[in-house]
Amino acid sequence: MISVTSQPVTGYAAMASGLPLVPFSYLPPELGEHDVRVCVTHCGLCYSDVHAIDNFYGDIDYPFVPGHEIVGTVSEVGVDPSGLQVRDRVGIGWQGRSCGHCQWCLKGEEQLCPDVVTNGVWVPYGGFASSVVADSRFVYPLPESMPAPTACVLLCAGISVYTPLKRYQGPNVQRIGIIGIGGLGHLAVQFAHAMGCHVTTLSSSAAKREEALSLGADDFVCTEDKAAIRLLVQSLDLLLCTAHGDIRWESLLGILKIRGKFVLVGFPNVAFNPTDLVAHELTLQGSFVGNRATMREMLSFAQQYGITPRTETMPMSRVNEAIKLVRHNKARYRIVLTNG
Amino acid sequence: MISVTSQPVTGYAAMASGLPLVPFSYLPPELGEHDVRVCVTHCGLCYSDVHAIDNFYGDIDYPFVPGHEIVGTVSEVGVDPSGLQVRDRVGIGWQGRSCGHCQWCLKGEEQLCPDVVTNGVWVPYGGFASSVVADSRFVYPLPESMPAPTACVLLCAGISVYTPLKRYQGPNVQRIGIIGIGGLGHLAVQFAHAMGCHVTTLSSSAAKREEALSLGADDFVCTEDKAAIRLLVQSLDLLLCTAHGDIRWESLLGILKIRGKFVLVGFPNVAFNPTDLVAHELTLQGSFVGNRATMREMLSFAQQYGITPRTETMPMSRVNEAIKLVRHNKARYRIVLTNG
Repeated sequence: MISVTSQPVTGYAAMASGLPLVPFSYLPPELGEHDVRVCVTHCGLCYSDVHAIDNFYGDIDYPFVPGHEIVGTVSEVGVDPSGLQVRDRVGIGWQGRSCGHCQWCLKGEEQLCPDVVTNGVWVPYGGFASSVVADSRFVYPLPESMPAPTACVLLCAGISVYTPLKRYQGPNVQRIGIIGIGGLGHLAVQFAHAMGCHVTTLSSSAAKREEALSLGADDFVCTEDKAAIRLLVQSLDLLLCTAHGDIRWESLLGILKIRGKFVLVGFPNVAFNPTDLVAHELTLQGSFVGNRATMREMLSFAQQYGITPRTETMPMSRVNEAIKLVRHNKARYRIVLTNG
Repeated sequence: MISVTSQPVTGYAAMASGLPLVPFSYLPPELGEHDVRVCVTHCGLCYSDVHAIDNFYGDIDYPFVPGHEIVGTVSEVGVDPSGLQVRDRVGIGWQGRSCGHCQWCLKGEEQLCPDVVTNGVWVPYGGFASSVVADSRFVYPLPESMPAPTACVLLCAGISVYTPLKRYQGPNVQRIGIIGIGGLGHLAVQFAHAMGCHVTTLSSSAAKREEALSLGADDFVCTEDKAAIRLLVQSLDLLLCTAHGDIRWESLLGILKIRGKFVLVGFPNVAFNPTDLVAHELTLQGSFVGNRATMREMLSFAQQYGITPRTETMPMSRVNEAIKLVRHNKARYRIVLTNG
């Protein structure tokens, strides 16, 4: 094992639920056998960071340093760093390690490793900081020409929507609806279009029409427009819901074909009368980020098809301002924080 | 085509949403090519009859004659009655016909035929009557020794729970939870036990413990007992929910293993925070009665394993009293109405 540097890691932490982040420092953790230390140059701000700051998931220990869409440079390596070398430009997503021996790790579905879900991903802290430590097996070399902000957003928002689209689209699943044109949704439209699907975009905001079409959508329907929704009844194979808050559940379930699938990658409030779910044998399913193999595939697919998240960058010192924009749905569409 | 008898059909109908049923008669419909007329001797009362009387599903035309757990005797046959003969003892479930040429009919999943879902099953009316007409391909000869009340309940409650249990149980789905010990639940426990599964029963009423164990459950947990629920966290492969009304969604989703499945066959109010659904990649799925092949298999399985619904019989003239018992959850567990 390589010796620990003694410089403290500096970053921004939530000290309790819902509070603005404050400057925070901690001693750099030692590297494990497979670990690498990565100097953070960029870190995306994801709605789930805000959820975590607010302890929406109920499992946060404070102080908590958010940030899980990390791009940076390897600065130090453990004894077996999976071929990574100091100075490599790399990305890390929501998952920085896993147990390696549970049924999910052995199946290559490491995102479901109970150790990770139970004990948190970032041990001790995340990417709104000068550096992070992660298991090299979860650290991805990036295509040389991929801009850092693009990579940041693909590493969490990208994998989250690519995984279910890739898993379910195919000859029998061609008509896909994307609910919500935001950080995740605007990527989902691009991915589904690049996969050759017919993409219907759905948003509560009629103002998103032009944007949705410019991203590659075949059509756009405002979910408040009852007549337009009626025209879609039982027409879609798959709905991918990237929205949060309240959505029009019964209307949306009604536009799925019999045995259609409604996939959640965000955290809207779930509340509906299940008549259609039962009588049409619909499926409501959660999809959670993605595994390592899919991450590599997604990065390569995104590079090949020019999938481009729309990002704005801000210095990390303005993290609280960025959080406010995300809280008020004002980010278009993802904010990436930059270090020094 | 055989000529129509001129005796009016007598029965009980709801004349508007939520009203008590009243005596009602109508001219007997002509038989189509594959139709048979069945003199009703018994008809079960299902919670979905009450839902339909109340227009919960939103698609009821009044007057409406409920009843879809029908046992009786063939009294008249069309030109091609699938081998049925006058005097055969038969059963008919929720579905009395289908279009025969849509993708679902061609796949042998006739219960999903859009014609049926859209236009209603009973044309014109259901089994709380002296006779019904159905397509002979949806009319099932009954095992000789199977009591009529048993057959009634198996034809809807039985097929509804057998279908998802049969579909999903297997080497990787062995630990099954049954939510609700009522008309559907008390059959689901027996079926799951007979399939060799480990069966955990869950009810909001602690008083159901002895009954649940006597039906073949391996254990019983009251859903109000937080400590007992905590012991079940992430332990079940499949939850089959037969309850209606309000259930403790987050607790129940929490006892499913990662990628576990929650199947709805009833119509509870759906409302939950989707954190576990997403992070554990859970599936919430509707299951709707079952197809004809599964119906035949289920009747034979029930006969072989002695699956026995607990029923009480009442004359059909007391239908409104029976409906009150069902509305107040006082039926133990299914009421079967008898003619003559």
